[in-house]
Amino acid sequence: MKTKQIEKFKITGRTKINRMPVRGYHDRETIYKILDESFICQIGFNIDGQVNIIPTLYGRKDDSIFIHGSKNSRMLKSFETGEDICISVTLIDGIVLARSAFHHSVNYRSVVLFGNPIIVKSEEKKKEALNIIMDQIISGRWEDVRKPNEKELNVTSIYKIKINEASAKIRTGPAVDDKDDLDLNVWAGVLPLKTIADEPMRNPDLKENIGLPDYLHNYNMKIRK
Amino acid sequence: MKTKQIEKFKITGRTKINRMPVRGYHDRETIYKILDESFICQIGFNIDGQVNIIPTLYGRKDDSIFIHGSKNSRMLKSFETGEDICISVTLIDGIVLARSAFHHSVNYRSVVLFGNPIIVKSEEKKKEALNIIMDQIISGRWEDVRKPNEKELNVTSIYKIKINEASAKIRTGPAVDDKDDLDLNVWAGVLPLKTIADEPMRNPDLKENIGLPDYLHNYNMKIRK
Repeated sequence: MKTKQIEKFKITGRTKINRMPVRGYHDRETIYKILDESFICQIGFNIDGQVNIIPTLYGRKDDSIFIHGSKNSRMLKSFETGEDICISVTLIDGIVLARSAFHHSVNYRSVVLFGNPIIVKSEEKKKEALNIIMDQIISGRWEDVRKPNEKELNVTSIYKIKINEASAKIRTGPAVDDKDDLDLNVWAGVLPLKTIADEPMRNPDLKENIGLPDYLHNYNMKIRK
Repeated sequence: MKTKQIEKFKITGRTKINRMPVRGYHDRETIYKILDESFICQIGFNIDGQVNIIPTLYGRKDDSIFIHGSKNSRMLKSFETGEDICISVTLIDGIVLARSAFHHSVNYRSVVLFGNPIIVKSEEKKKEALNIIMDQIISGRWEDVRKPNEKELNVTSIYKIKINEASAKIRTGPAVDDKDDLDLNVWAGVLPLKTIADEPMRNPDLKENIGLPDYLHNYNMKIRK
């Protein structure tokens, strides 16, 4: 049996966890697991030195993030400057209620990463990237749908961001109060929060004979992994 | 009866909705309603010209956002440069499944705003801001807890960001496919997603006689408003 190697991202000035370093992680396994549980990221980028954020769909494969958008998107056009962008993914697991205001907190898992967006040009690679993005949202969906045609691909820009620097931050567990506060008559604990799928809603124009695909039946299992 | 005035934020180059302008809103009512449904925002800021994002708790009151953190926080220290920051809040309501890959989408409500962070200095104003932030997470909680003491206030930095420029973007409704795709044998519709609270978990060190406060009993009603 081979020795299991824990692959870590290099810690840099941008990804060093200064606040609460005990909550910080730089290993790929932890970071990829958080990235794989969501499909919406926040992209930070500059336009003429002014910081902007836009929420965007994404897909991860190996050490890369793929995003897409209209080729006229101000954000995607800004990538042409070649500057590194910042990507943030945040999962909220609960509200931590302490006896003191000061020790209230949130249980969360978050990733912040930096990378340089490279445009994906060939039709084949663009389709691959769109498949990865769709898989991130609903695994198995790509096989069912009408694939993008040339016209659709032409109006879509796709960027690949190789993850060079990334950190995760995780808080779990109960409230931690000061010793002097433990006797206060204040409820303390965690209110767990989770995202669930409701009953799927058929499109009004959907043909009657088309039943619900398996990947929608099982969706809650996916998002609660 | 008075004429109802719709108060709009001025539309600027930073908040003009270029992509899908039909989804864009600039009125305070729409923007505040989205901001009030969450308590985690993403803060975009520059350090030496490099864009960073950090997820952070916030509270809104009137036309201001309040955030807090350790006074040693790299992010909060960066605010001293006086540059405008960007704040993003995103609510995901569902996955939109079209017959074509191209027309897949997400139902969402999002706000992006810009503003200049001003430090809150007086002890009284700091406490007020912390009350606003806590109210945003769980209304009614502040009254119950042990309030921050001088030492705790001293290690906490609080910033107020007046919302000067903001836009909301909203997508609702079913999938919209091309006419030619309507006959395909592919399921189309929306998978609604929502965040719910699970059973509250008492802290292991909580005194047995302390019961669950009302604001936790009713929490799901709050987050599903």
